[in-house]
Amino acid sequence: MNNKYKITIEYLGNDFCGWQRQPNALSIQEVIEQAIYKFSKETVSVTAAGRTDAGVHAYGQVASFCLDSKYSENKIIESINFFCKPYPVGVIECISVDADFDARFSAKQRHYVYKILNRKGINIIEVGKKWWIRDYLDIELMRQAGSCLVGQHDFSSFRASECQAKSAVKTIDKIEIIAIADTIEIHVSALSFLHHMVRNIVGNLVKIGRQHWPAIKIQEILDCKDRSKAGPTAPAHGLYFLQVDY
Amino acid sequence: MNNKYKITIEYLGNDFCGWQRQPNALSIQEVIEQAIYKFSKETVSVTAAGRTDAGVHAYGQVASFCLDSKYSENKIIESINFFCKPYPVGVIECISVDADFDARFSAKQRHYVYKILNRKGINIIEVGKKWWIRDYLDIELMRQAGSCLVGQHDFSSFRASECQAKSAVKTIDKIEIIAIADTIEIHVSALSFLHHMVRNIVGNLVKIGRQHWPAIKIQEILDCKDRSKAGPTAPAHGLYFLQVDY
Repeated sequence: MNNKYKITIEYLGNDFCGWQRQPNALSIQEVIEQAIYKFSKETVSVTAAGRTDAGVHAYGQVASFCLDSKYSENKIIESINFFCKPYPVGVIECISVDADFDARFSAKQRHYVYKILNRKGINIIEVGKKWWIRDYLDIELMRQAGSCLVGQHDFSSFRASECQAKSAVKTIDKIEIIAIADTIEIHVSALSFLHHMVRNIVGNLVKIGRQHWPAIKIQEILDCKDRSKAGPTAPAHGLYFLQVDY
Repeated sequence: MNNKYKITIEYLGNDFCGWQRQPNALSIQEVIEQAIYKFSKETVSVTAAGRTDAGVHAYGQVASFCLDSKYSENKIIESINFFCKPYPVGVIECISVDADFDARFSAKQRHYVYKILNRKGINIIEVGKKWWIRDYLDIELMRQAGSCLVGQHDFSSFRASECQAKSAVKTIDKIEIIAIADTIEIHVSALSFLHHMVRNIVGNLVKIGRQHWPAIKIQEILDCKDRSKAGPTAPAHGLYFLQVDY
């Protein structure tokens, strides 16, 4: 176990149970670990920066693993990609790293983007890749609401009931909302997140964008530290794990 | 046949033989005409602004047709979309138009965009939606070459051998090349195009972006009016029919 590799992975999450291995469903982790086994004959456990949920995509998931044998970085990329077929999972970068690197614990910041197709017309080309919302969304109100969440807070109102984190205190470094033609992108960055935290933030911002709630309501939801007071969770298929900084 | 409608259609072209009806393959035209028949029981012939090739997508194909019965615009949209399922074809807009409107002959300008994913890393999320090119492309050289093609020219070197247009003289109003992260978009606008013209232009611009040819070569290719002197045709799956102006 002398050779450690860091890989950057792109995937479409729609048909997976998420990153993490599960007994009766196919995970991205399993696809990657099996691909590594097929070319190296080594059984490895791959650690990822973010354990994305079922249906969530990634442009830049980062994972690390060790192998007894040494391979070139290109050989790792090509071999994993060959054996990942036909799944929509691929390694776009690989570098050799020191033994103390860990994709999860060495991460300094994680970046997600949530994509909404905001128009009356039906979603065809981006089905399964953007959340289609027909109602007009007021981006300015969403930005106001989003700014209340930036910084260190107790995010109990935005965590899933099954979340296993000891503390609900997290620090959001950035929430940026960008409109590009009929797409709204919500960029969220933090060192780490609670379970469903980005999707819960997006679900609440959409309630405000639809003007079902005033922007200030997000502050009340945050303050009451009660998931039952918050709005719905946005669907998984609009969410992308974008990038990890080390 | 008193009621004429103009519809704007989005589709993913990968699994179709193109816009136009063909005896032994499924076309977008057939899907739309059958959907119209299913709710109206009227057999119509739908005219499109652009007869896209097999594999070419559309964000804004425009088509027109007449019906004996009158329907609201929303009813047209919802009914066609209901009966287009499960195909990746949908109407995003419908308006009632005068009898003299014709999606093809009333068009004043057609806009296409060609999308290239230009990076070393494998294409996963945009498979079938962008042309993946690993080699570095020099966009500045592509822009120089593209500017030679703007204006009125004989585009014989850029037409498919099966092209049926009487004249190869066309006027390109705009070629704009935009880089957005690792995507290169080539926007091309004209009143009308020859068969495969946009894909042939893109194929030649890519030869220049790869520095297999100097930028000035595109002028030589244009001048010699000989398809056999030009570079390859870019694959269909990177091309989108974007918009039609009337």
